[in-house]
Parts: sequence; C-alpha cells; structure tokens
Amino acid sequence: MSKKIVVIGGVAGGASAAARVRRLDEQAEIVMFERGPFVSFSNCCLPFHLSETIENADDLVLMTPEQFKKQYNIIAKVQHEVIRIDKEAKAVFVRNVHTLEESTEFYDELVLSPGAKAIMPESIKGIESQHVFSVRNVPDIDQIKRYIDEKKVENVTVVGGGFIGLEVAENLQMAGKKVTLIEAANQVMTPFDHDMAQILHKEIMDHTVDLILEDRLVEIKADEVVLGSGKAIPTQAVVMAIGVVPETELAVASGLKLGKTGAIKVNHHYQTSDPNIYAVGDAIEVTHQQTGKVTQLTMAGPAQRQARAAADHIYGRTYRNHGVIGSSVVRVFGMNAACTGLNEKQCQEESLDYRTSYVIPKDKVGLMPGARPIFFKLIYAYPSGKILGAQCIGEGNVDKRVDVIATMIRFNGNLEDLKELELCYSPDYGTAKDAVNMAALVGLNVLNGEYKQVPVTEIRGLVESGAFIIDGREEGEYIEGHIKGAVNIPMSQFRERLNEIPKDRPVYVHCLSSQRSYNMVRALGMLGYKHVYNLMGSFLGLSMYEYFTDQVEAREPIVTNYRFDLL
Amino acid sequence: MSKKIVVIGGVAGGASAAARVRRLDEQAEIVMFERGPFVSFSNCCLPFHLSETIENADDLVLMTPEQFKKQYNIIAKVQHEVIRIDKEAKAVFVRNVHTLEESTEFYDELVLSPGAKAIMPESIKGIESQHVFSVRNVPDIDQIKRYIDEKKVENVTVVGGGFIGLEVAENLQMAGKKVTLIEAANQVMTPFDHDMAQILHKEIMDHTVDLILEDRLVEIKADEVVLGSGKAIPTQAVVMAIGVVPETELAVASGLKLGKTGAIKVNHHYQTSDPNIYAVGDAIEVTHQQTGKVTQLTMAGPAQRQARAAADHIYGRTYRNHGVIGSSVVRVFGMNAACTGLNEKQCQEESLDYRTSYVIPKDKVGLMPGARPIFFKLIYAYPSGKILGAQCIGEGNVDKRVDVIATMIRFNGNLEDLKELELCYSPDYGTAKDAVNMAALVGLNVLNGEYKQVPVTEIRGLVESGAFIIDGREEGEYIEGHIKGAVNIPMSQFRERLNEIPKDRPVYVHCLSSQRSYNMVRALGMLGYKHVYNLMGSFLGLSMYEYFTDQVEAREPIVTNYRFDLL
Repeated sequence: MSKKIVVIGGVAGGASAAARVRRLDEQAEIVMFERGPFVSFSNCCLPFHLSETIENADDLVLMTPEQFKKQYNIIAKVQHEVIRIDKEAKAVFVRNVHTLEESTEFYDELVLSPGAKAIMPESIKGIESQHVFSVRNVPDIDQIKRYIDEKKVENVTVVGGGFIGLEVAENLQMAGKKVTLIEAANQVMTPFDHDMAQILHKEIMDHTVDLILEDRLVEIKADEVVLGSGKAIPTQAVVMAIGVVPETELAVASGLKLGKTGAIKVNHHYQTSDPNIYAVGDAIEVTHQQTGKVTQLTMAGPAQRQARAAADHIYGRTYRNHGVIGSSVVRVFGMNAACTGLNEKQCQEESLDYRTSYVIPKDKVGLMPGARPIFFKLIYAYPSGKILGAQCIGEGNVDKRVDVIATMIRFNGNLEDLKELELCYSPDYGTAKDAVNMAALVGLNVLNGEYKQVPVTEIRGLVESGAFIIDGREEGEYIEGHIKGAVNIPMSQFRERLNEIPKDRPVYVHCLSSQRSYNMVRALGMLGYKHVYNLMGSFLGLSMYEYFTDQVEAREPIVTNYRFDLL
Repeated sequence: MSKKIVVIGGVAGGASAAARVRRLDEQAEIVMFERGPFVSFSNCCLPFHLSETIENADDLVLMTPEQFKKQYNIIAKVQHEVIRIDKEAKAVFVRNVHTLEESTEFYDELVLSPGAKAIMPESIKGIESQHVFSVRNVPDIDQIKRYIDEKKVENVTVVGGGFIGLEVAENLQMAGKKVTLIEAANQVMTPFDHDMAQILHKEIMDHTVDLILEDRLVEIKADEVVLGSGKAIPTQAVVMAIGVVPETELAVASGLKLGKTGAIKVNHHYQTSDPNIYAVGDAIEVTHQQTGKVTQLTMAGPAQRQARAAADHIYGRTYRNHGVIGSSVVRVFGMNAACTGLNEKQCQEESLDYRTSYVIPKDKVGLMPGARPIFFKLIYAYPSGKILGAQCIGEGNVDKRVDVIATMIRFNGNLEDLKELELCYSPDYGTAKDAVNMAALVGLNVLNGEYKQVPVTEIRGLVESGAFIIDGREEGEYIEGHIKGAVNIPMSQFRERLNEIPKDRPVYVHCLSSQRSYNMVRALGMLGYKHVYNLMGSFLGLSMYEYFTDQVEAREPIVTNYRFDLL
C-alpha cells in the first residue's frame, strides 16, 4: 500500500519535503496545499526585485504546480487553504480561497510548513494604510514595486534593521529612492555585536540611507511617518520588517503543542505532538547547538534540512539532529557581513566566560591589487579556548572565514586547532597566515596570559581619562590622523625611547591594525612593563567603531582626523 | 644569560622564525643570514610582476635589513652565505658573497631555512643559455621582466604546469606575450585529478596559451625550443618551472640527516638530527596527516607554521604537529581552482577504498546576476564516508568550499557531518543547500547503495559501445547539443514514457548538471529498473571533460554540439 503524504505550505520547507518524499517513494501520493498563488518561490531573493537586480517578479517563482506534477508527480494546489486538521481521522479540510469550495483530504503523514508572517503592530496608527507593506512573498514584493513605480514614490521608510530591512533598504537605495531606515534597538543586525554593527552603520550612512536608531514608529500618515521621539519623516511608502511570528493558528486549532517561544514544538525528528504530523521551517522552534536552548530561526538552509529530515523519518530513516548555530551572511552596500555561533551578548546571557580576538588583516596579500581589510572578531571560551562564534565584515571574502568557523563549531574545535588549520592560500585569495589563524594566535596569547587587551568599546573612556597611549605607527602616519593625546613612539624606535614610557602606570599601545602593537606589547612585557595593553583593532578598528556615533551625536571625535582612505 | 639564535635563510621560514623568537624573547641575540640580496620578500607574488599586476619589483621586498634591525632588533645580513656548520662548537662560518670575507658566528640554537632551488636538468641542451630563467626570488623575476622588455620578446616558452608555471604563463599572456606551456605529464596541476584538470586545460587553451602535454623539452636554441616529439617552437625566452629540489648541501656537509625524500629530516618539533639545529620550510620533509607518509610541500603557510613551532620549541613550548594536507588555490585565467587532502591518484597509491561525488551547482542562487557553475569533486572513504579530499574549479568562490573541506579533514569529518553543515547563506553568496552539502548528499546515496554512477572518464566508452543513455533535459535543450545516440526523455515526461526505457539492459541517465537525472535515477530504481546509473557531471561535466582532448587530438566529439554558453 502506497503512502499518502499531505504537505501544508509550498515554499522552502514544504516544497523540499514533498520533493524528498518523492525521491524516497516513487509510489507515494503527494499533495501540497499552498494558501498563496505560488509554490516554490525564492523568499530570499524577494528584496532584489526592488532594484531590478532580479528584473521580473515572475522569475522569483522557481516552479509552477504544472511543473511539480510533471517533474515530481506531486499535486500542488495553490490558493488552497487548509482550515482544519482532524488528527483522529487523519484528514485535512481545505478551502479554495477563490471559490470558497471546501474539500477533505486524508493523509497517512502530514507535513506542516506554514512559515511565518510579518509583525504589523496594531499599536502603530495607520498600520493598515494602503502604502504600508511587508515582504513575505511574491505578491508582496510585486505590490511594493508597482506602488513605488506607479506613484513615483521618492521617499521610503523601512522599519527594522534585520536581514530583510537591510536588503530592502539597500535595493530601494539602488533604485534611486531616498530611504530612511528605522531601528528600535541601538544597532542593526542583532546577530552582530554592537562594536561590529558600527561598521555596518557607517556603511549604511555612507550610502545616504538615513539611519535612525533607538527610535520607534508611532504613526503612519499619508505623506510622513511620526516616530516616538516626535521626529516626522516625509515618506510615501513604508516597508515593515521588524520581524516575523510563526504561523501557528492551524496548529493551535488542531491541538498541536507550541513550545516556549510560541512556535510549534517538534521533537528530534520534526514530529509535532501528533506523531503523524511533522512541522518544519519558520513556524517551528529549534534547538541551538551551543546553548541547548530552544529558539526560532527563519532561514532557508535549516528549513531545507528539516524538510529532508522529516521526509526521511516518515520512511524510517534515522537522523542525527545537531541543532542550529545560526550562520548567516548579508550584503550591506559595499560590505559583506557574515557571522556564526554565539556573539558576546549571547555569551553573557548564557553566563559563559569568554574572550574575544579582533584582528583586521587584509583579505589577500597586501601587494595584490584590491587587497582590503577584513574586520574579524572571534569569540572563544575561557579558559578552554573552545571556539564559540565569529563575526566578519569587509569588502572581500568574509563568508569563507566564517564558514570555516562554522565548521569548527560543529566539531568543538578550539584555538589550538584553528591556529594550525591549513587553508587554501595564494596571494590573490588570502594570506599565508589567514585572518582566522591570526585570530587564534591572538587568542592563545590571551589564554596564556602573555597579552592583555582593551576592547574597542573602552578606548574612548581611556582617552578621556588621559591614559598613557602609545601610537606605534611611523611619524608620517601619526601626523595624518591619531588618537588625541597619544604619544607617537614608532615600533622602529621604541627600544631606544623606553625612557619615555612610564613603568608606574598602565600603558596602552596601538598601531594601524595591531600588527605592530602586538610586537611592542610583547616586547614591553618582557622589558619589565607590568601593565601593557593592546588597543584591540588599533586605529582602523577604533575609527570604525567611533565614527558613526560621532556623526549622529555630533560628538567630539577622540581622534584628530579619521583616515578611512588608509583602509 | 640571553640566548643567541642564528637563522640561515631570510625568506618565509627564516624571517618568520626570527620574528617569532623576538616575540618570545626580547633579550635574545638574533642574527639572520641570507645568501641573496633580499630578506623577507614575497615569493608567492613573484609571477605577478610579469604582468605588472605588481608594478615594481621593489614592492616584492617586504622588509629591509634596516627595518629588521629597527623594528625587531634582528641583525639581518644579506649576501652572506653560510658555508659550514660546526655542530660541536655550535658555530657557523659565513662568507660575504661580495668581499669573500669569512667570519664565524656562534649560536645557542640554529634555524635552517635554506629553501629549494629550481630544477634545471643538464640533460636539456642549452639549459645554460642567457635566455633561460627560473623563478625563485626577486632578482630572478626582475631579470626575466627586463629581458623580455628590453629584447622585445614575443614568444615565451614556460616549462612545467604546476603553480609557478601556470602563474608565469598567465601573467606573461596578460602582458601580451605568445606563451607556450609544456608539461611532460598528461595534465597540469597534479594536485588535481585528470578529470578536473581538463577544465583547466580548456581554460588555458581558451586564453590562447599553446598548451602541450606529454612532451618534453630536449633542446633550447637561440630562437626556438625543440621537444622530445621533434616539434620545434619559436621562442626567445624560456622559463623553467618543472619543480624544485630542497637546498640540502649545507645540511649534508654538516652531517645532518636527510629523509627518504631527499629533504632534511626533522622531528615533531622541526629539530634535525642535531637537537640544537632546527629546519623549516621548503628544504625539509613533512608528514602527510592523512597518509602518515613523508612528503615535500613547498608552501608558504606550512613554512610559517613550522617556523613558529621551531621558535616555540626553542623556548620550551610544546607543539601538536598534525602534519600537512596540502590545501591550495590557484587562479587560471578566469577560473579559480582549489583543492585539499587526497586526490584519486593518492587514494589509489594508498590502496584506499574510496568513492567520489561530482556536483556542478551554481555558486549562488541561479536568479542572482553573475551566478556561475562550480565544478566540485568530493572524495570520501568507502564505506565509512570519511572525507578524504576535494577539488573545486569555477569562476566564483571555490576557495571557501575547499576551506570547509580542509577544516573537516582536520576533524575527521564524514559525509553525515558535511550534509548537515550549517554555512553562511544568502542568495548572493551561495545556495541554501551549498555545493558541499549537495556533494555529501550524493555521497550518502552512494554509500547507502541507493544510487549508482559512472564517472565522467567512462562516458565516452559507454557512448561508443552504444549504451542506452537517457537525456533528461527538455527537448529544446536537447536540440541545441546532446550526446550522440542519447534518447531524449525529459524528466517532465519519463513517467509516461517508461515503455521506451528497457529493463533488460543498463540505463544511463544525465541532464545538464545531474540535478534532474538524480531524481530520475532514484525514481527508475524504485520502478523496478535494476541497473540505472547517473552519468556524473551530466552534460556540463562531460563537455568540460571531453572538449580539450577533442581539440588537441582532432578527435570526433561524442556530442553533437558543445554548448559552453549554457554554463
């Protein structure tokens, strides 16, 4: 007897589950219901239609129901909403959203992949207006694009600085719109720590997007939005991207259990509280590999793996479920920004003892044309050195560095392993000692107590308190821009100028990217200086961290002159 | 009492060792001798001067002896050759290559980093000519560039298809020269298997380099070179890049032991047979992590790690020496080519039972502009699924895929681990299921016996023997170019056309990149077809594999029409 599999939801999770079932069972009867007009579209590509990077909205649809039938012998019914599940009878009740006609479909196994929906807070006045949009599917993005084009909209407000918000803002800016990006927190992209997010803030601001942090949308009017601060921003269209909530109505109505986070609870094999009903994708809660806690993760990669695992389990296959670590990458104008594992905030929430390395090497050999700095932050456990996470931002290949760390996390790698990792090298692709190796070396010095350092977040305080700061760069570099009050003692001179360096108070050393200051810190330590610290990130890191806040707060910079042309 | 450390050789290994010693011991007296005129130059960047990608040869020198003194308090003596080591007295005898003046330097610990020299076989007539060059250091590359510019050389012959040979050929071609590349083996880049090398051969040929395989240089005349085949090639300059041999004269003369490979033998801590003498870099033999065998590896990354490890051991630090796996990447015109671990040839030499996956997905989501195929070959042990190696070639980010595999090899990862690896994804950087994940999925199907496949190397034989081959692409794709004799049964039709597919003989299925044929092979297997095989790489892989040989041998293609515009 062949099985009958019903799938609810026809995008990443649902379509993957259906296709995988077909590969496992050529005889299975597979029916997939999708409430919307399309199955198998590329959610992740939606924002790119706004800039016409993807010209036609139609291209976002990867497969039609006809193709599902022909290629996979899967019956895909769009604009069919499942309104009720009868777990005892193993039946779903379906309504054609056009004709309102209802029908019943029986199943042996049911896979739920209902996804998540945009949060549209009713507390915001005017949220129901015609010119307020969200980005969840092809009709959404098509509608925004048409509206903006037809109404010749010039000013768009994007609310929310996560993946979708940033991608929408960027693509609208590329389309020539004046974009305001509003984020309630003090940073965009919460998977990154605040220090790293400052690099993104600078990049966003440099591309003429008006970035407003720590403010909230209160009211949407016809031609402006009003913020909590009272600020009014002229705008003819609003895109809401403050987050999503799992679509759980059907699950709840059917008596399936939700988890702590409010998403559908599943076991190791993605079975819900009813063993014949599986759930995958944005609507479920998943377990974090490193913290062991449940969380929500709205990402395509994990959704596809979950779908495959569910299908496999239907056919009696075991699955080793390791949980998720949350690897991701996003383009923010000229910058690529990737991260994986735990960030500092998460480590603190978990009360983990951790340390960080912050290195800013070039992404390839400095001699090669186009070599650019990458800002790489590594987070590791103290004192074990176990790798916990990484964040990397730069114009070059940051994703490969973070993929390596993601792989290490999977295997519980530590700093010793990372230091020795033998990666692909030639001058156009990296450096013989890659950024990830360097970060490990710095980390080992920290673990071994051979190296003390001050995070970029604390440098302003030191400067303001008149700490003794040594700038180890050459005089010409110093003159063009330096930390106010820093004493210029180049690495090439410090051994002859030890008399200028006090032994009775802490000494803080930096250079451009910490390569020279690293050597100076080590040497001074051996020369009897007991309290020598490296300023993490040095002049590059400090500049990236401070610049944005200086601008938005019209604050006095702690340097005489920023020199971003040195990057 | 402060230690005195003498270092012989001032490039990658030597300079790294000296700098590391300084970081460990501010009081140490460090003297570094270099026979050539420069210390600390970038060997890896040398070829890029030929195309003026690196305009000035001077830029290749990263640090002068003066800088070593000022920044690191290291005495670097260039044009000083160490002519003898007295192990008992712990002294080296040094000759100034200009003045021929000799001096003695005592050491507590000695680090040898003499490097390797180009093989210049005396059996080749005319090898001593003025217009025959090798590429080992800055004067070498400066000399070639000057000679070519001053003599207005138009035709250059490069001998040897390894890293250096390819980079030299490419940079000369970029400089507008007519380049002939001669390789004695049947492929360039031996770290790659022959099937993958064919992709490089096509790329080289497409860029008007005259690539001659399986032929040897016999004689160099003033205006031509003569090959073993009798062929004569007009040429006004010859660059020899057939390989290097470790510089062991000094070690041998000093009674230090060599290993099986003829390179200097070292222990776990890079100590030679004399415990006060360390050796690092191209002159030593290293142990392969996977085979446990000694080998030579002339690469900057490992050299730097060895240097650090040697310095660390001098100061009593332990080191976990894992051996090498040989990760590398090279640009071949428009293609990036990276590999790590064992290739098929090495697996065969080691009598390992292995299988391969060959997948050709896009490097990013297909909808995104600039999405291009990557040719990814994964090698894993049978039946354990342990990852053994990978080779990846494409226009996009191949190095990140291979770095992930390099990391997995370090941790003895297997296909199950790789399938689940959670890597950075967004549409511009990869696919939700990345190439490496896909290769693992294919591999698991192979291990589970759910999938049989024929390597690209055997497809011609099948075609010529009249095997039953199904082309699962749509009719329009088939018409524009297909395997001769293949039957076009698109994936969208095969279930209705089963009567055309014989059950009593083997059936071979392909499509464009094996995505569709994968589904068809699975389905046919479940429909009672006992001998269904996927043609690995499908039409893309087959075309890449066959095209080059067709051209050079003026051989009848096994396809009606190559369609590289489909890539």
